[in-house]
Amino acid sequence: MWIAYAGTRYQGWQKQKTSENTIQGKLEAILYKLTNEEVEVLASGRTDAGVHAGAQIANFKVKDDKFSIEDYMDAFSSYLPQDIAVYKIEEADPRFYARLSATGKTYVYRIQNSKIPNVFERQYMYQLTEPLDIEAMKEAAKYLVGEHDFKSFCSNKQMKKGTVRKITDISIEKKGQEISISFTGNGFLYNMVRILTGTLIEVGQKKRTPESMTEIIEAKSRYEAGPKVPPMGLILKQVYYEN
Amino acid sequence: MWIAYAGTRYQGWQKQKTSENTIQGKLEAILYKLTNEEVEVLASGRTDAGVHAGAQIANFKVKDDKFSIEDYMDAFSSYLPQDIAVYKIEEADPRFYARLSATGKTYVYRIQNSKIPNVFERQYMYQLTEPLDIEAMKEAAKYLVGEHDFKSFCSNKQMKKGTVRKITDISIEKKGQEISISFTGNGFLYNMVRILTGTLIEVGQKKRTPESMTEIIEAKSRYEAGPKVPPMGLILKQVYYEN
Repeated sequence: MWIAYAGTRYQGWQKQKTSENTIQGKLEAILYKLTNEEVEVLASGRTDAGVHAGAQIANFKVKDDKFSIEDYMDAFSSYLPQDIAVYKIEEADPRFYARLSATGKTYVYRIQNSKIPNVFERQYMYQLTEPLDIEAMKEAAKYLVGEHDFKSFCSNKQMKKGTVRKITDISIEKKGQEISISFTGNGFLYNMVRILTGTLIEVGQKKRTPESMTEIIEAKSRYEAGPKVPPMGLILKQVYYEN
Repeated sequence: MWIAYAGTRYQGWQKQKTSENTIQGKLEAILYKLTNEEVEVLASGRTDAGVHAGAQIANFKVKDDKFSIEDYMDAFSSYLPQDIAVYKIEEADPRFYARLSATGKTYVYRIQNSKIPNVFERQYMYQLTEPLDIEAMKEAAKYLVGEHDFKSFCSNKQMKKGTVRKITDISIEKKGQEISISFTGNGFLYNMVRILTGTLIEVGQKKRTPESMTEIIEAKSRYEAGPKVPPMGLILKQVYYEN
């Protein structure tokens, strides 16, 4: 299934014991209402509280096969709140797992770079009033692209699995007063996109040099990288699969 | 001054005795804080509760001339909430009145025409699930363009001043699942754009013919026109002046 959501009102994707207010929780509650089964909805990856998705991909398995895709679509469009939408469902190969089958992802971080806020998109942009040096940020991004150990850019200190990831592209664009940074890679560590963005912003603020990216990567220490930027500017734009 | 606002959280432009929660009220409170004068901020026109503006124009006059344009800009950017922004101030001719000097306006009404909501722009669009016949709506719009007595499209029954207005253009566009209707004219009566839109939607739903627009205009009765659509889809896009 393809899901879009504005994360502002939610405590992230993942269902929690203490709160019903998650994207996964909302979707599973509707599937339970329809099928009377406790169906687990598994996404390509968790998004944090306040983070948005334009095309999150998830899979679920229902024992009872009496429901059609239209039944599911109707249930979601009837019961989902206005800030979550399931816009497509397809039957998948039983071996398909939204998370394990994903070959890559694109995240975009949006910055309103002006004193004046964007009143209409303020929930989807992080506002920074001082101007940023975009050329320096683009230069720094080149050092981050490639296969590296991104341990310095990960919030989770007890990361048991490897912290090597491959970033295939970082594009930084400025349109009017909006700066958007698009990250594409084979996978991202916990908070990695927000820490990468915070570090690139410090380059744009002349607090760090583009070349210092190499030292940060080599340090393998969270303390060397920049701060984690707030979630509202982040959107999971696309998830890639082999076919 | 040029002002943008997302009207969702406000009870419209105009200051009210019972509520501080208006755009005018917010702006005047900040001017009072800065100048210690009771300054009136007069707009090109009132917008209703829930209606947005991309470029509302307003004027104000302060007795004390010790404040610079920068002082005003700083005060607004420091104290305005994130959904109201003053993005430009210019000194005007003393004979300039945002309302009286205006020669025309453009309003846009946005419709999300699909079962699936637009999760990111839901506060700026009216959702209609059944598909509309755009060609019939465009045909109907042609009958509305021109100088007419628009009494049938006005909510205010005790309209003392004339109800003749000139609409110079109505453009209807469909992009993906979004339909936007843009109205340009020398002035609009109370609720006129929302009633025109409600009537055009009924043409798109085949409840009325395009030709019936002439009868509605001639009837000069609110009961002949279609319903008033909700405010969230409406935005004041531009106000025109002679120079």
